[in-house]
Amino acid sequence: MSKGTVVLAYSGGLDTSCILVWLKEQGYDVITYLANIGQDEDFEAARKKAESLGAKKVFIEDLRTEFVEHFIWPAVQANAVYEDRYLLGTAVARPCIARRQVEIARREGAQFVSHGATGKGNDQIRFELTCYALYPEVKVSLFIYCMDVIYRHCGVMSLQLERSRAPADLYLMTKNPEDSPNVQDVLEIEFKKGVPVKVTNMNDGISKNTALDIFSYLNEIGGKHGVGRIDIVENRFIGMKSRGIYETPGGTVLLKAHLDIETFTMDKEVRRIKQGLGIKFSELVYNGFWYSPECDFVRHCIAKSQENVEGKVQLSVFKGQVYILGRESPKSLYNEELVSMDVQGDYDPCDASGFIRINAVRLREHHRLQGLSSTKQ
Amino acid sequence: MSKGTVVLAYSGGLDTSCILVWLKEQGYDVITYLANIGQDEDFEAARKKAESLGAKKVFIEDLRTEFVEHFIWPAVQANAVYEDRYLLGTAVARPCIARRQVEIARREGAQFVSHGATGKGNDQIRFELTCYALYPEVKVSLFIYCMDVIYRHCGVMSLQLERSRAPADLYLMTKNPEDSPNVQDVLEIEFKKGVPVKVTNMNDGISKNTALDIFSYLNEIGGKHGVGRIDIVENRFIGMKSRGIYETPGGTVLLKAHLDIETFTMDKEVRRIKQGLGIKFSELVYNGFWYSPECDFVRHCIAKSQENVEGKVQLSVFKGQVYILGRESPKSLYNEELVSMDVQGDYDPCDASGFIRINAVRLREHHRLQGLSSTKQ
Amino acid sequence: MSKGTVVLAYSGGLDTSCILVWLKEQGYDVITYLANIGQDEDFEAARKKAESLGAKKVFIEDLRTEFVEHFIWPAVQANAVYEDRYLLGTAVARPCIARRQVEIARREGAQFVSHGATGKGNDQIRFELTCYALYPEVKVSLFIYCMDVIYRHCGVMSLQLERSRAPADLYLMTKNPEDSPNVQDVLEIEFKKGVPVKVTNMNDGISKNTALDIFSYLNEIGGKHGVGRIDIVENRFIGMKSRGIYETPGGTVLLKAHLDIETFTMDKEVRRIKQGLGIKFSELVYNGFWYSPECDFVRHCIAKSQENVEGKVQLSVFKGQVYILGRESPKSLYNEELVSMDVQGDYDPCDASGFIRINAVRLREHHRLQGLSSTKQ
Amino acid sequence: MSKGTVVLAYSGGLDTSCILVWLKEQGYDVITYLANIGQDEDFEAARKKAESLGAKKVFIEDLRTEFVEHFIWPAVQANAVYEDRYLLGTAVARPCIARRQVEIARREGAQFVSHGATGKGNDQIRFELTCYALYPEVKVSLFIYCMDVIYRHCGVMSLQLERSRAPADLYLMTKNPEDSPNVQDVLEIEFKKGVPVKVTNMNDGISKNTALDIFSYLNEIGGKHGVGRIDIVENRFIGMKSRGIYETPGGTVLLKAHLDIETFTMDKEVRRIKQGLGIKFSELVYNGFWYSPECDFVRHCIAKSQENVEGKVQLSVFKGQVYILGRESPKSLYNEELVSMDVQGDYDPCDASGFIRINAVRLREHHRLQGLSSTKQ
Repeated sequence: MSKGTVVLAYSGGLDTSCILVWLKEQGYDVITYLANIGQDEDFEAARKKAESLGAKKVFIEDLRTEFVEHFIWPAVQANAVYEDRYLLGTAVARPCIARRQVEIARREGAQFVSHGATGKGNDQIRFELTCYALYPEVKVSLFIYCMDVIYRHCGVMSLQLERSRAPADLYLMTKNPEDSPNVQDVLEIEFKKGVPVKVTNMNDGISKNTALDIFSYLNEIGGKHGVGRIDIVENRFIGMKSRGIYETPGGTVLLKAHLDIETFTMDKEVRRIKQGLGIKFSELVYNGFWYSPECDFVRHCIAKSQENVEGKVQLSVFKGQVYILGRESPKSLYNEELVSMDVQGDYDPCDASGFIRINAVRLREHHRLQGLSSTKQ
Repeated sequence: MSKGTVVLAYSGGLDTSCILVWLKEQGYDVITYLANIGQDEDFEAARKKAESLGAKKVFIEDLRTEFVEHFIWPAVQANAVYEDRYLLGTAVARPCIARRQVEIARREGAQFVSHGATGKGNDQIRFELTCYALYPEVKVSLFIYCMDVIYRHCGVMSLQLERSRAPADLYLMTKNPEDSPNVQDVLEIEFKKGVPVKVTNMNDGISKNTALDIFSYLNEIGGKHGVGRIDIVENRFIGMKSRGIYETPGGTVLLKAHLDIETFTMDKEVRRIKQGLGIKFSELVYNGFWYSPECDFVRHCIAKSQENVEGKVQLSVFKGQVYILGRESPKSLYNEELVSMDVQGDYDPCDASGFIRINAVRLREHHRLQGLSSTKQ
Repeated sequence: MSKGTVVLAYSGGLDTSCILVWLKEQGYDVITYLANIGQDEDFEAARKKAESLGAKKVFIEDLRTEFVEHFIWPAVQANAVYEDRYLLGTAVARPCIARRQVEIARREGAQFVSHGATGKGNDQIRFELTCYALYPEVKVSLFIYCMDVIYRHCGVMSLQLERSRAPADLYLMTKNPEDSPNVQDVLEIEFKKGVPVKVTNMNDGISKNTALDIFSYLNEIGGKHGVGRIDIVENRFIGMKSRGIYETPGGTVLLKAHLDIETFTMDKEVRRIKQGLGIKFSELVYNGFWYSPECDFVRHCIAKSQENVEGKVQLSVFKGQVYILGRESPKSLYNEELVSMDVQGDYDPCDASGFIRINAVRLREHHRLQGLSSTKQ
Repeated sequence: MSKGTVVLAYSGGLDTSCILVWLKEQGYDVITYLANIGQDEDFEAARKKAESLGAKKVFIEDLRTEFVEHFIWPAVQANAVYEDRYLLGTAVARPCIARRQVEIARREGAQFVSHGATGKGNDQIRFELTCYALYPEVKVSLFIYCMDVIYRHCGVMSLQLERSRAPADLYLMTKNPEDSPNVQDVLEIEFKKGVPVKVTNMNDGISKNTALDIFSYLNEIGGKHGVGRIDIVENRFIGMKSRGIYETPGGTVLLKAHLDIETFTMDKEVRRIKQGLGIKFSELVYNGFWYSPECDFVRHCIAKSQENVEGKVQLSVFKGQVYILGRESPKSLYNEELVSMDVQGDYDPCDASGFIRINAVRLREHHRLQGLSSTKQ
């Protein structure tokens, strides 16, 4: 007599294998679920292992395109950076993965979901908040109990997009900049509505134009040149500081390119407001609130701001760096108009003096008042 | 019979020489003023030229230490970056230069100040707002009139810390990363109250411990490795977009190092509030409001936030990049305490589940309501 | 031979009559334009006066419905209050009035627009920014020159929705609360998408359901009870402080009602973000930037946030005050669900303890560190 | 053999009496603690009751002056209002009360603290966060368990400064405005550094000049005229919406007076930044983070902003409303200077035109670009 069905986020590794066995021992039917979001994994080996350990069903889902289009692209639009440095790799992956997991749980009539994320980390929160938000009746609590026992025996789950530095061979996606090529790659990235729609390598003419291909290619080129490695201390949602060592080659290239085309095509004051929303977005995503009313709202506002973020950015990638070389856009004839303005006489230098003197009204009064105070004292 | 005395910010170049002559022709006594903020300039040649053109007095002032300590250091504390990319080189220099100019004007009894900044640029605004704020009775308006005439003949003043790329030999402070050394420099920078107090090169043991020496040395090392070049489009205060090509080698090293030690030693939520203040500071400084009540206020708040920003950051500089290698601080035993927390049993995994479920209360209600709405429709 | 055509915002008063005559004397054809936004004015008398003074054409436009629906309603959605107190009466009217004026100017082929707003005030800015934004080629500068002369002779234009207190009979729309009825009116206001769609007086059953009728009725009832009088010091865009004495009876009732239904139906965190956008909106509108990319953007975001702001608010109006009595909404079953939560056992008190302890992790560490510091010193 | 000592926040009511008895039954020594923060309570009766129920020690502490000076005054400086309406009565009292409780616990060597705040409310959070922040080793968890049992038998603790409306005689501090006097009181409140230092009733000359006397008197006068009643829905920290009915007569008078003198004496742009900090402060205090690094930081910044907030505000209190009548300040000669400015010719109307045209540069470009887009399509 089964106590119910659990959909377990299964990696094929020791830790989630332990959970699988333990859950079965406790009397649960276990469905394993493994998401392919582009990691380097032997999915068939994981399937066989899950089956051999008694999984009732095994789901292996290719979420790569969905991940890039619906999770990474909004982060690109937002210029999402947590605490000025972290580009939110797994923070963005987690809601994508958990969403499909609860879809499977609903479809299979499972009341429980489980996962291998640790008790102190952000990933537990991101996973569980997504589950509660999308499947309010689901139970995830049982896992924790088990995890507390298992955790000490199974070791730590390894993250996909981010890795802890300790060993020298830590980085999987990026070359050491010292060992990277001595010749730069020059890329042209084309944006529409704030997301890349095409990338072309000006060196060899290679071109990509689907979301998944573009992102994979930028990971490849960025990685080849050692772009996007960081070693930081970050503040977790629960209030601890922790060290993180990350590599996000494609994300770093896109951040620089998007920042450039955005500033080129977006009104200055819209940009200021949108900058604040982007910071808010980053905090929400980092803390696990992708599926929340406020993150929906912020994503909507940011997407609105991107309507005219369109054009091409040329950049070079070299020895760990991304250099913007230039940009062009049908939506930004601004510059040419403005340069020619004082030729046409539309811009009157006297206006600037008036502008400055009006801005100084307040400053002059402030100074007079201060003089007054100091005289009195 | 003199119409009055003008203190002219004089560079020794064609443009301000034109203004000098023109002012004298109009019947003014002219005092020239040239600030040394570290630029590569033949100050004695400028002095002779000014004298030969009829300057009544010539002031050449060494503001280098003041510039670093009172203008660059607060920008370091603020992590000051305008529009996510520009490190505010001349924007920070301008109030430093203009402050001394109005001091001289007051002391010499001059009613007028003049400068060579162009009519469409930010620098005119920064210069004039500083003058009005610190010397409300001063007149700067006469200059504009003259400038309008002279501008077309004299060409553009070249900026000190920032340069327009056009020619290949544009960059003065930084090597081309392609031509930079193949061996990295490893530095250790020590901070107290959020400003650097010492830098040591781990390769050769060279060490600097005064503000001016530290900043000069970081400019040297950063420049040697091609750090801090950017090519951006930025939004000027007056609403135009313009292209800017800048090099800030020392500033870039310090930004990265300060960000790291700050996140390491500052409370997470203080950091969030301070991040907003830093963005505000950057906008104010960019727009020329260094001497304003709000910038005073923001600087005070930011300085307060830096009381515990103390410790050492190790970093390498290589091929245009700065890599943080590690950090340590007497003010941040955080990490060690926290790592040991679950060993001590102080951190209870059940708490995290409760924390998550309480955070999910709102998300679950939202989802239920949405389900309700969609059922009804 | 005409120098061109001017569309003049004409009030029928002395000041704009002076401008009309002066413009004709200078050789311009003058078209007068008078907007009806609900003020108490003899429009036919103004028409005759304009004609008798030589206006080439006279436009009197009824903008009342447009004003309420497209200008006041967005301000209601935003909870627009400038500097915590001012409800933005004329600030909202000005872009509505100027928009039609430039439409007329375009249609009539007029190159010039003119108005009677004073040189130091916000209204000049609001008027002119709207003109430039919607009709970039228009000229408004000529007026200023004339105004400088005329201003001193013609006296100050009286504002429609806001009035300066000085004389005892200053207030036009509101009764003195001391003289207002001793019996309260109880109203029920129904909102959809954050704007009122119906108001019903529970005392007598009177009901209104068009935008103009609703707003007029709330002005009437609010005015009868002396609601919405304020005497404030405010900061003008140009940096001066000035005293303002305003009466906004209907706006005050709507602000209180909207705040209530909004908090009732909007997610807490969406509300926080939207609150910030509302403050931004208020500053933009106050400063004259209704027609700007950033105000467009903010209005769009705020409108998005209002999708579920729906329901009925009951309130009483009495002796200068508005008291919320209750509210109900089909979009907010929240409360009932939540009250019953701990009955159903969905809410576990242990979760709250976990939630608190996790929130305290950071606070406890901070305290320990402080203790450490003080011990060392 | 005692299991340890508990310091219990004891009200003398049924609920905390239950807890007292239960704790003793479980084998704990119980010290009761009752704070006098101005509530109407028979403290001696509470003392006797606690002793008769077996309390080992009984502390009754007069915190009234400390409460007003160190907790209410900072809230006045901040213009603290949660979600635009709630003046934070008990939210401010809770950290004041809990601080002394943990001081007693430390002094008496008690490892445990307990309280009667309910499991779903904000007050539990505020209490416990304060305890953890100031006494990290303290245990408060045991209480919850007990509370879960006791809660259902003992009824709800009644709040001090805020009350639920249900019965007609709910309000304790304020008269029904309908029954309040027909003659207004006119008060003059004098501020220094943003806090009131004197209040004078212009009707009868009564004057108060200590913190406690001022606040008590404003509660009395405000209450007499029915000021400060609200019925709202608010968002609790834990994500539930709940209804709250509050009365804060003195706080409402002070909020209006402080807003007025602040805007009068504070620079416009400082005010904008400080407004954001005040909103942050309100959220922090509402959520229980009075004793946190970020609230310390925000309080420091706000206090800094208040240095020149000095002067006298005249206001009338009548039928539930507070009307500002006027203000004066030695720190704000602004107005007079500014009014006389255009007399002196310091303010040039041409400057305003230049100011406007420069502000319009961006708007005109935006419009042109839009026209371009629409033409192309």
